[in-house]
Amino acid sequence: MTTGTRLDPWFTSYAQRAHGLAASEIRALFAVASRPEVVSLAGGMPYVTALDLDAVADTVAQLLRERGATALQYGSGQGDERLREQILEVMAPVGITAHPDDIVVTTGSQMALDLVVRTFCDPGDVVLVESPSYVGALGVFRSYEARVVHVDMDEHGLSPVALSQAIDQVRADGGQVKLIYTIPSFHNPAGLTQGQQRRHDILEVARRAGVLILEDDPYGLLGFDGEVPRAMRADEETGVIYLGSFSKTIASGLRVGWAVAPHGVREKLVLAAEAAVLCPSNYAQLTVSEYLATNDWMAQIDTFRKLYRERRDALLAALADHMPAGTTWTEPAGGFYSWVTLPEGLDARAMLPRAVAGLVAYVPGTGFYLGEAEQDANRRSLRLSYCYPPPERIVEGVRRLGNVIDDELGLIATFGQAAPGTGWHQHDEAVLSTPAPDLA
Amino acid sequence: MTTGTRLDPWFTSYAQRAHGLAASEIRALFAVASRPEVVSLAGGMPYVTALDLDAVADTVAQLLRERGATALQYGSGQGDERLREQILEVMAPVGITAHPDDIVVTTGSQMALDLVVRTFCDPGDVVLVESPSYVGALGVFRSYEARVVHVDMDEHGLSPVALSQAIDQVRADGGQVKLIYTIPSFHNPAGLTQGQQRRHDILEVARRAGVLILEDDPYGLLGFDGEVPRAMRADEETGVIYLGSFSKTIASGLRVGWAVAPHGVREKLVLAAEAAVLCPSNYAQLTVSEYLATNDWMAQIDTFRKLYRERRDALLAALADHMPAGTTWTEPAGGFYSWVTLPEGLDARAMLPRAVAGLVAYVPGTGFYLGEAEQDANRRSLRLSYCYPPPERIVEGVRRLGNVIDDELGLIATFGQAAPGTGWHQHDEAVLSTPAPDLA
Repeated sequence: MTTGTRLDPWFTSYAQRAHGLAASEIRALFAVASRPEVVSLAGGMPYVTALDLDAVADTVAQLLRERGATALQYGSGQGDERLREQILEVMAPVGITAHPDDIVVTTGSQMALDLVVRTFCDPGDVVLVESPSYVGALGVFRSYEARVVHVDMDEHGLSPVALSQAIDQVRADGGQVKLIYTIPSFHNPAGLTQGQQRRHDILEVARRAGVLILEDDPYGLLGFDGEVPRAMRADEETGVIYLGSFSKTIASGLRVGWAVAPHGVREKLVLAAEAAVLCPSNYAQLTVSEYLATNDWMAQIDTFRKLYRERRDALLAALADHMPAGTTWTEPAGGFYSWVTLPEGLDARAMLPRAVAGLVAYVPGTGFYLGEAEQDANRRSLRLSYCYPPPERIVEGVRRLGNVIDDELGLIATFGQAAPGTGWHQHDEAVLSTPAPDLA
Repeated sequence: MTTGTRLDPWFTSYAQRAHGLAASEIRALFAVASRPEVVSLAGGMPYVTALDLDAVADTVAQLLRERGATALQYGSGQGDERLREQILEVMAPVGITAHPDDIVVTTGSQMALDLVVRTFCDPGDVVLVESPSYVGALGVFRSYEARVVHVDMDEHGLSPVALSQAIDQVRADGGQVKLIYTIPSFHNPAGLTQGQQRRHDILEVARRAGVLILEDDPYGLLGFDGEVPRAMRADEETGVIYLGSFSKTIASGLRVGWAVAPHGVREKLVLAAEAAVLCPSNYAQLTVSEYLATNDWMAQIDTFRKLYRERRDALLAALADHMPAGTTWTEPAGGFYSWVTLPEGLDARAMLPRAVAGLVAYVPGTGFYLGEAEQDANRRSLRLSYCYPPPERIVEGVRRLGNVIDDELGLIATFGQAAPGTGWHQHDEAVLSTPAPDLA
């Protein structure tokens, strides 16, 4: 709670749900971290520079000359019909078959997430999420006053045994489980991927318990070994809402994502979308549609895949070179992130200001948890992104991080503890309670 | 409630707020009304064909070639800083002075509306709105389970006396008034404009009662007599949230709007926006920014003004020619709409299918009210839009409407009542409960 907020004359007028919203104190630090001399391994920004910008410019100019009056007009709340047909093609590799009418186009898949939670969650309803989970999703659950329960992952991702136990436990306590939120492929932030058997096991737990799965899949086409994991929605139509996005396969600045939902749910989502924004941008939608129709989008995704694989390789090699004994990390088979666990005694959040002073930035692991106990249990973890900086910068960043960690370990060896943090770790509830876009 | 919804396996899982959302039965009719042989005086679509589409194409192509990597990337949750500076220039004519930091850019001003209600309204909180009010705003209030209380307008718009009484009444009944929602300039759907004295009187009532005003101003620059009404926000900084939009001055398909809010409120809105969509589209924002920087946007607005004035004139002349005695209508000094009241005994909603059969469409007035009593009291009213069809089509549409009304009056004279409607007027709560985008 800042002083400014206390001076707000409308402070007593806010809705209950708005009181949970507070600015992350970590943001000021990331403003510093965005200076060019800092290697940022914090953000989840796709490397859109790898697009052929001239080709995109030509595509859009042609669209506006030929269909400008449509592209610049209001459209349907559900989204452009031709784009919804093309989305079916984009989802074919993950095994999803659907009808264009099953799709709702949204302002980024973040908005689809918001609409789903708005449609299902009363205050106090429970959402089960991975441990850790995507910070942007946690922000949505929190903004609707849902209760978030973290469920353990193992090396194959979300644990079906832990999931089943969590459902039983919540129900025994009188709670109402509304959604299981999962990122099965190239998880943000954990960097893990569920295999096929694991997906089937999770689907089975959800089916038996009668709980809806919210499958978030922004990275599904960005696997590094040529494989494309089969979506859970491909094997379960009525029990899964699937979220897709063009943010990582074309460009995040367009803000075009989508949901695939069972019929009744889809109807509710469209009505909620109309209340929220009337309709998604025809301009952005037709840009995506024209791009898909006139460019070799699969080849572009291959370009992204190779680029991110090279960066992933640089990160993993640098971690092996520069991390001290006792540090562990995940080895992502796709996507943008690796999850690092520091040696005993270290605190990634308390260390962050010193890391930024050492010209490297990351996101402390505590940001991917809601709840003080969960955050306390994960002070040693942090997320590294390899999507944006070129390989040599990634290596330099990890080298700097290694130096910072070595200094911390030296302090611990000498004084029994590292230097104190800046005090923000005393305000767990406010820290990273909502995502800054560059933490996506 | 459709059969499909009843068969929905997730029907019992929805949040309380989602049960109020139901598809408008009137939509199927508007699908028919979009056939080219029907003159639609129903939609609020701006006539974007009047833009120089080649110039827009050139602007965007240049943007993408020069700053494509920024335009296609994530941006800040509050919106692009240069655009926020330009928005200050766009608001100068309505008298608003502010700092770029006071502005939040949103996915159309509809999203700003949604964020404000999300931030302020708990279920049961009261929002005071004009009688009639914008259907898209009613959809938002309803979706957050706010209680809507309609306040009378006179020929100068919202009545300060009625407003003051409504606040007293709600408070006497134990209700919590959170917002006064008003469209002071070129009202949708009433076609009325508050004069300066009226605005001051309303501000004074709000100040005394300690209630926040939500001023919605999408049409402020579209006055037909060269005058630009001074915004309420120009005379009251801490008591007004102002909503602006490029939908009617540039293009609705871009989905770029904004809110100007007092400091503490603005902080909340940014956090809510980040939960809702992470960030507004950089692509759409930089398109607007580049357009404002490189095109004569004031001249374009003048073009729109003249075009809509010509259509308004055509409408008013045709109404004088073709409406039967006992019909009244407002004479808008700007914007898109005139509000028509039919002679005693007629029911605009029941008449709509026969109007569509007669190849003309409008929006029944009941759609602009929440609550059965309010709807019943306004069965004789309807909204006519003159923004989209060319003048000769408007005249033809009004001529057809005159014939339909004459037939109704003939039936009443012969049988004592008009032909019955199709039955939908028995489902007041479901009808037009949320806006279709083309009714915006």
